[in-house]
Amino acid sequence: MPEGKILLAHGSGGKLSHDLVSDILLPRFSNPFLEPLDDSARITNQEGPLAFTTDSYVINPLFFPGGDIGKLAVCGTVNDLSMVGAVPSCLSLSLIIEEGFSIELLERILSSARDAAEEASIRIVTGDTKVVEHGAADQLFITTSGIGWIRKGVHLSGVNARPGDTVLVSGFLGDHEIAVLSQREGFGFQGELKSDCAPLNGLVGRMLEACPTLRCLRDPTRGGLATSLNEIASRSRVGIVLEEAQIPVRESVLGTCELLGLDPLYLANEGKLIAICPPQEAERVLEAMRAHPSGKHAEIIGRVTEENPKRVTLQTLIGGHRVVDMLTGTQYPRIC
Amino acid sequence: MPEGKILLAHGSGGKLSHDLVSDILLPRFSNPFLEPLDDSARITNQEGPLAFTTDSYVINPLFFPGGDIGKLAVCGTVNDLSMVGAVPSCLSLSLIIEEGFSIELLERILSSARDAAEEASIRIVTGDTKVVEHGAADQLFITTSGIGWIRKGVHLSGVNARPGDTVLVSGFLGDHEIAVLSQREGFGFQGELKSDCAPLNGLVGRMLEACPTLRCLRDPTRGGLATSLNEIASRSRVGIVLEEAQIPVRESVLGTCELLGLDPLYLANEGKLIAICPPQEAERVLEAMRAHPSGKHAEIIGRVTEENPKRVTLQTLIGGHRVVDMLTGTQYPRIC
Repeated sequence: MPEGKILLAHGSGGKLSHDLVSDILLPRFSNPFLEPLDDSARITNQEGPLAFTTDSYVINPLFFPGGDIGKLAVCGTVNDLSMVGAVPSCLSLSLIIEEGFSIELLERILSSARDAAEEASIRIVTGDTKVVEHGAADQLFITTSGIGWIRKGVHLSGVNARPGDTVLVSGFLGDHEIAVLSQREGFGFQGELKSDCAPLNGLVGRMLEACPTLRCLRDPTRGGLATSLNEIASRSRVGIVLEEAQIPVRESVLGTCELLGLDPLYLANEGKLIAICPPQEAERVLEAMRAHPSGKHAEIIGRVTEENPKRVTLQTLIGGHRVVDMLTGTQYPRIC
Repeated sequence: MPEGKILLAHGSGGKLSHDLVSDILLPRFSNPFLEPLDDSARITNQEGPLAFTTDSYVINPLFFPGGDIGKLAVCGTVNDLSMVGAVPSCLSLSLIIEEGFSIELLERILSSARDAAEEASIRIVTGDTKVVEHGAADQLFITTSGIGWIRKGVHLSGVNARPGDTVLVSGFLGDHEIAVLSQREGFGFQGELKSDCAPLNGLVGRMLEACPTLRCLRDPTRGGLATSLNEIASRSRVGIVLEEAQIPVRESVLGTCELLGLDPLYLANEGKLIAICPPQEAERVLEAMRAHPSGKHAEIIGRVTEENPKRVTLQTLIGGHRVVDMLTGTQYPRIC
């Protein structure tokens, strides 16, 4: 690690985050429930397969077009449970508040968390509140954890992708990160572009009804599509080829990316998922996705290959190929 | 709420924390799993009664005599599960790290979390890491959540205390808060006094074997013995009378309290529990507690009464009576 200090990039979801997990966390906490490193842990015992997950939210600003930290904290954890095929059941909500924070804003954020929980049919059943001195935290951090029971017969995991499989995405990429950046840096896209922040459990339910043999689901948050697919390629020891022409990105997001030198494949999303399924199921899965409001812009974007294991490549619009690596460094901090 | 701002006292565990929960949180998230407000939520469905809890740790300093934030974050959540009669099973661990934090210190803290998890026979199965800019957080905050299956036939809750019941405590009160304050403010007691930070699941197991009809367990953390007993008195609609002479407090802790004008009944503990049991079981419970290393200084400290419902009173050493209210304001912030 450079100079023995934590860098912003250690929290980016990219390469350094990955190193932190594999060099510092995994060697200490190694156990069979932790090791698959899916979006939720899968706890199997006589009481049935239970999914368990946690995320801290440190987004800045707290309010952004399309949501706020309360909605985000609920949706993010609901989505992590959904990605392992669980029906989200209960959430915990833990607040770290800076002294002097507005109670009115806190109430707005908690109402928004409640509304998101209702939309996702999940209950907030336990919580905690800590207050730290002015200056010891930036306004408000929220940590949510969630549990849910995994549907019988479903086994989604990043290790399951097989050569020949189809890769799908549920809609436009990058809306969340660009909406947050616009709000924070004052790029002036407010109103035009909203974060995609939304619970995905409804969409996942439809997809699993249509195709119980889905191999893998991921919500490409920090590090974006590129990082999620690199993780899958690496853990399934397969290659993944994407077709740039098929990847849905809004014009306004593309424009901002060009302006700022960002790559949409690395942008964070908070209401999108990647699915990998057997090729013969792809059309059925796509249809189920498009029939749901959260998946109406779904597309087939690529396929899993035996060649180039552990590598993601992009067939570009102009007919070339380029390797799409994990995010290295950080695009922007605190976008979730 | 004064001036519409969050105050440090909103995080103290005392009266303002209580108001924050009842005025702002409960009206929004009201549901039957949340409402008992025990240390863990009890989730009952066909998969069996599951306990689920969460806590954020913002302690300052990160290292203190007898422990550090890593050990604390594991023990605190293990203890919250234990207080509802659950066998702790799995933990999540979520880190919010300030940019520039030492990786070596992070490694020490995580090793300490691992050791505590091993001592408590619990596995850390999922986690998250966020990094915020220098100055946006004070070094490191940890949020742990935990799940555990509740022992069959056990129903511990703050609503269960009945007139005639006996109140016990597992040992010396206040060690944690005074050890942390000494370290932080440089009172110079370091080495003499250590935090009691420890997992209590072993002790609870022994107590429930000895007395499966235990009414209620609480770990008196923020707000101390006084606040925990006020919560029980209020929720069970009973009075509680304590005998000052029986309450175990170390000389060094008493001395510091006198010096600083603190009341030991309000000091935070991280390895102690309060038990309420039927009077005919009290000796058996006491014996089971004293037979365990975490309970060897256990004492019977009071009884539950029909008189003075929702009130805790203290029979003082000099023969008087005084009402022991909930903590109002904060003794010191960030002791857990």
